[in-house]
Amino acid sequence: ATGADNDLHINQAVVFIEDAIQYRSINHRVDSKSLWLYRWYYSRICQWILGLTITVILALAFVETPSSLTVTSDVRYRHPPWDPPCGLTESIELLCFLVFVFDVSVKSYLIGWEEFCKTKWLMAYILTLVVSLTDWIVSLSFLCTETVRIRRILRPFFLLQNSSMMKKTLKSINSTLPEMASVVLLLAVHLSLFTMFAMLLFARTKDGQQDKEWVGYFRNLPDSLTSLLVLLTTANNPDVMIPAYSKNRAYSIFFILFTVLGNLFLMNLLTAIIYNQFRGYLLKSVQSSLFRRRVGIRAAFEVLCPLEETPANAQELCVSVGDLFQVLQKVEMDPRCKQAIIRSLKTSSCDRLSAAQFQKLFEELDKDAIKQHPPSPEYQSHFMQKLQFVFSHSYFGCLGNVVALANIISICVVLVMDADKRPSERDDFFLGAINCFFILYYLLETLLKILAMGFKRYWSYPSNRFDGLLTGILLILEISTFAVYGFPHPGWRPELMGLLSLWDMVRLVNMLIVFRFLRIIPNMKLMALVVTTLLDLVKNLRAFAGILVVVFYAFAITGIMLFKGAVVPMGNIRIFVPGHPLHQEAVLISKKKKCDFLAFLNHFQTIFIYHLCYLLSFNLICRWAKIYFIAWWLISSVIWVNLFVALLLENFIHKWDRHCHRESLSDIEYQRTVELMFRDVLEEPTEEELMERLHQHPHLHLCR
Amino acid sequence: ATGADNDLHINQAVVFIEDAIQYRSINHRVDSKSLWLYRWYYSRICQWILGLTITVILALAFVETPSSLTVTSDVRYRHPPWDPPCGLTESIELLCFLVFVFDVSVKSYLIGWEEFCKTKWLMAYILTLVVSLTDWIVSLSFLCTETVRIRRILRPFFLLQNSSMMKKTLKSINSTLPEMASVVLLLAVHLSLFTMFAMLLFARTKDGQQDKEWVGYFRNLPDSLTSLLVLLTTANNPDVMIPAYSKNRAYSIFFILFTVLGNLFLMNLLTAIIYNQFRGYLLKSVQSSLFRRRVGIRAAFEVLCPLEETPANAQELCVSVGDLFQVLQKVEMDPRCKQAIIRSLKTSSCDRLSAAQFQKLFEELDKDAIKQHPPSPEYQSHFMQKLQFVFSHSYFGCLGNVVALANIISICVVLVMDADKRPSERDDFFLGAINCFFILYYLLETLLKILAMGFKRYWSYPSNRFDGLLTGILLILEISTFAVYGFPHPGWRPELMGLLSLWDMVRLVNMLIVFRFLRIIPNMKLMALVVTTLLDLVKNLRAFAGILVVVFYAFAITGIMLFKGAVVPMGNIRIFVPGHPLHQEAVLISKKKKCDFLAFLNHFQTIFIYHLCYLLSFNLICRWAKIYFIAWWLISSVIWVNLFVALLLENFIHKWDRHCHRESLSDIEYQRTVELMFRDVLEEPTEEELMERLHQHPHLHLCR
Repeated sequence: ATGADNDLHINQAVVFIEDAIQYRSINHRVDSKSLWLYRWYYSRICQWILGLTITVILALAFVETPSSLTVTSDVRYRHPPWDPPCGLTESIELLCFLVFVFDVSVKSYLIGWEEFCKTKWLMAYILTLVVSLTDWIVSLSFLCTETVRIRRILRPFFLLQNSSMMKKTLKSINSTLPEMASVVLLLAVHLSLFTMFAMLLFARTKDGQQDKEWVGYFRNLPDSLTSLLVLLTTANNPDVMIPAYSKNRAYSIFFILFTVLGNLFLMNLLTAIIYNQFRGYLLKSVQSSLFRRRVGIRAAFEVLCPLEETPANAQELCVSVGDLFQVLQKVEMDPRCKQAIIRSLKTSSCDRLSAAQFQKLFEELDKDAIKQHPPSPEYQSHFMQKLQFVFSHSYFGCLGNVVALANIISICVVLVMDADKRPSERDDFFLGAINCFFILYYLLETLLKILAMGFKRYWSYPSNRFDGLLTGILLILEISTFAVYGFPHPGWRPELMGLLSLWDMVRLVNMLIVFRFLRIIPNMKLMALVVTTLLDLVKNLRAFAGILVVVFYAFAITGIMLFKGAVVPMGNIRIFVPGHPLHQEAVLISKKKKCDFLAFLNHFQTIFIYHLCYLLSFNLICRWAKIYFIAWWLISSVIWVNLFVALLLENFIHKWDRHCHRESLSDIEYQRTVELMFRDVLEEPTEEELMERLHQHPHLHLCR
Repeated sequence: ATGADNDLHINQAVVFIEDAIQYRSINHRVDSKSLWLYRWYYSRICQWILGLTITVILALAFVETPSSLTVTSDVRYRHPPWDPPCGLTESIELLCFLVFVFDVSVKSYLIGWEEFCKTKWLMAYILTLVVSLTDWIVSLSFLCTETVRIRRILRPFFLLQNSSMMKKTLKSINSTLPEMASVVLLLAVHLSLFTMFAMLLFARTKDGQQDKEWVGYFRNLPDSLTSLLVLLTTANNPDVMIPAYSKNRAYSIFFILFTVLGNLFLMNLLTAIIYNQFRGYLLKSVQSSLFRRRVGIRAAFEVLCPLEETPANAQELCVSVGDLFQVLQKVEMDPRCKQAIIRSLKTSSCDRLSAAQFQKLFEELDKDAIKQHPPSPEYQSHFMQKLQFVFSHSYFGCLGNVVALANIISICVVLVMDADKRPSERDDFFLGAINCFFILYYLLETLLKILAMGFKRYWSYPSNRFDGLLTGILLILEISTFAVYGFPHPGWRPELMGLLSLWDMVRLVNMLIVFRFLRIIPNMKLMALVVTTLLDLVKNLRAFAGILVVVFYAFAITGIMLFKGAVVPMGNIRIFVPGHPLHQEAVLISKKKKCDFLAFLNHFQTIFIYHLCYLLSFNLICRWAKIYFIAWWLISSVIWVNLFVALLLENFIHKWDRHCHRESLSDIEYQRTVELMFRDVLEEPTEEELMERLHQHPHLHLCR
């Protein structure tokens, strides 16, 4: 083996170990130059630029022509938004596209032609880029006056393809679709049969007084379908049945049957099906990550090996410790892990490592970091020691909580008393004085705690950081209030001076005090468990949130394109008559708008569209809008919420089991990740599986 | 052993085996007379009388004075309901109470004093009876004019205590309460903190135009709390945020945070907690049933034993086959099981049975009945055989489904065309002619199928029974239509002749045809799975439904008592201004009224109460009503729905797993019960456990 060969192998090992750390696939080119390119491509700066580009191209929608952000959302009052000149957003777009073109070509080169053909995501990436660039050229040649911009709807794809977690999640969702489809089909059958029943039951009668039900909800097929679909979301329950019910109580049986079957059984069945499919999802994904890590480590071992060994005694492959040191110097990884590995390498006696030893060495990566809080300072004086004992005792924390509660209650009392007063009648003296006192107490508490625990130990607890930061902000606000408005005195009137009025300042202080009250959470055991579950969930849900953003973005852009120009300020006509079909639509829309960020852009537009449709009988637009909103409801409300519930169940049940098993490790805080949560149940891949995977590598050709 | 002793032991064995069959506890008196009383008490007629009494006393609420049923629910139109004279319902009540007194005394006597002291349910039963009887005496002494009748609220207790399944379920729910309470507490903290934030954010401003949010939703503390509580049910989303949102888009962050945290996280966490608690619930209850059965069988073995054996060779206890025959003659059980046991007893060679053999003999009880369909008739003629082949082929069934679909579509088309026509313009000729043709086809199909399969085989399939019955009813309706209105001809006008108008007849026929279309369900595999899951769920949910009825009943009675007399017909004033707090209340009520049977009685009342409160500013009543409805929402909507979801998940996941394991046993229909669903995972109790339980028996004193 020559020196260059040796260098190459060292470099390969470095890259493979980095792959293992990041859970990346090792199926890429392994020659010298490609390795350099690979490391450069996955360097922090490059990935950061890529992320920034994706953010920029997604954020463009907020400033582009049809949907510029304004402070108010009401079309009647809002100022004409800023209209960027033609070419400005387009040139930013072009820059982004160029980055993406560069990205896709580097990626394709690195995995090689053979792998490229297998990777549908890369091909879709190229296709998206081609379509986007074509659309961009068309757009410029029309001088930005064209109406349809396909490339906007395609934008979220760039976000999707950049995250392997999201791609995996999408695959999982995809495999659940057949069963979901069967339930949705059942739901459709349920809906259509009941619609026919309803149309037969609530037909028009001779007596005009008697057929309110027909007039209001079941006038024709689309009306009936809509009424019952809205009933499935429970938005018009029980309004929809009141006319029939007040004619004859027995009619309620129809609606109860429909609601129980549809809402209680079928909708929840969807939850059950999705949960059943996703039960193993987290475990499976963690298992495959583990496999990738083990393969990466093993690959590093294999490339380091042949330098030293003759093929004769191939059963006892070994790696020299010196080579490994060289590799470790070059690898970019968590310094804590690196030190731990080097330490255990130095303490081991032998200077050659077998595959098992090599693997074991890197198990440090899987371990969770046990956070050690710095020690408290040791005071000499007896008095100081006593002080330290008193103020680091848990009762002192409890006292702080009680004081915070008292503060909250006092604010609440003042709020209740002042609720109906006009701003000019308000006197902020009482609240100002109380808050001044409480904030002084908070400051004292913080200082005493720092004195008792030492600043480093104090700061190492997240709850203290939260506390200290808020206290600091409160102090600054209070001091600046006093600087501008003087000390509180009776008749301390809220009048505008400077940036914020006194009243606003006081409100801000109060809000921060209410927020600070959250510090009590870790003190209540069950609540703490629930809150940590929620926090974990947020970590594990990033992939889902990403997909949600993709769906929201696509829907918002589609909505903007479909309904652009349909909204005209119309004065004050915005009152919908309850019971009118239009009102139902509005309610339906409301239901579908749950947790909807970007699509808020559309909210007022849609209400106006419905009003417009009503006035002008534009049945066609209305129907399109209806289909758009039903699709939106199905995807965002029904499917996504159920996915969320499934994941929450999965997470919570695991967490709860662990909580019951190990009672209290209160002082040691684990960095909980999804990998660690499942560590007990994960299976280690066997030697054969690892080697089989290595032999399938398209670029690395092992002699054995 | 004398003959009387022998008889006693035989009788004991009979009762123990019957206990085992019914999964009853064996802890009751075992002397001769008590056994006779015990068998008589648990005879079908006695239990039936008890059930009838419970039904009667619960049904009394429908005819008693404050809530008599009327056809219409609208107070403005309804006739004064029938007012039973004082003493009529009361004497029926007294009869019921006497039955209950008899029931409780027999029960207490049978289990004996020692057990009675341990049974809190029985003591509560006695207490309830004493309170009810006292209340009854008070009621009569006031000549039925007293306002408060406590005994009405206590009535559902009689239903509760009569079902062991419901008592068990209640115990399970009870054990989940601490965790539920922690989440509800978290929810309360969430709500109160956000309420304070909201009151600070949306305070009254100087500009009257700007504080629509304050006027509409956050005027004072109760208003703000209500607004956010209603937002938690999503009923006023996004109305509640529109005023603030149209002032500044950033306000939406507050509402989105509140909804995501409260509705998405905390509410679903409740589901997760309840599911986690109930995961093992079904299994555990089935396991304890199995234990009771094994104990009963073992007890029967033990009482039959000592007749024959000397204590010397006690290791090899045996029962003579002759005694067992005697016992089996007397036991009341499923004839199929009895025959199977007698058959296997006859075929076995030995005439003495060991404990294991005895136990094994009775395992027949645990087996599911495999339903054998009778064979098709065998025809001699070649032509008939061919006919038989054609009409029993599955394609013929498919053709039937296609024809049914065609019928549905034709009805749908006519409905769409006729939707807007006035009754006088309608011409039923087309629909009449089409339906006549289709019903003839259905008749033909039924007859041909009976010809091909023979009547017995045809009738043994549930789908055929469904089909045949509906076809018969359709035929009768059609014939009677023709008899009254003649054959369809153009201008076949719907005019009233006889009981139902032609139009009503046609509608009824159409509804039945739509209903008949459900026969397609078993033909679609996934749909069939889903539907059988739902049907199973209904079976397993009886205990939950019972508890729900208890809760509904108690709430309805309380509501009637609280709000009696508050409702006065007020002409036409029933329109609520959207956005007004009153409207929110109405919407909140609507949300809470989901799937609510008896409490429909209250619906109009509450709307009127709110209206009344509004007009007269009866703040006190309104607040009570609010608390009542919030309690109702929490129990019926939040807790019960989550319990339901938990059980559905449990059931469905088990079912799905089984479905995936065994692919198709299409021809054999199992009688699926919850016991059989878990048979694979149940643990058999050990000999020691059984004997320990037997030795704890308060009345049976085994020599060993």
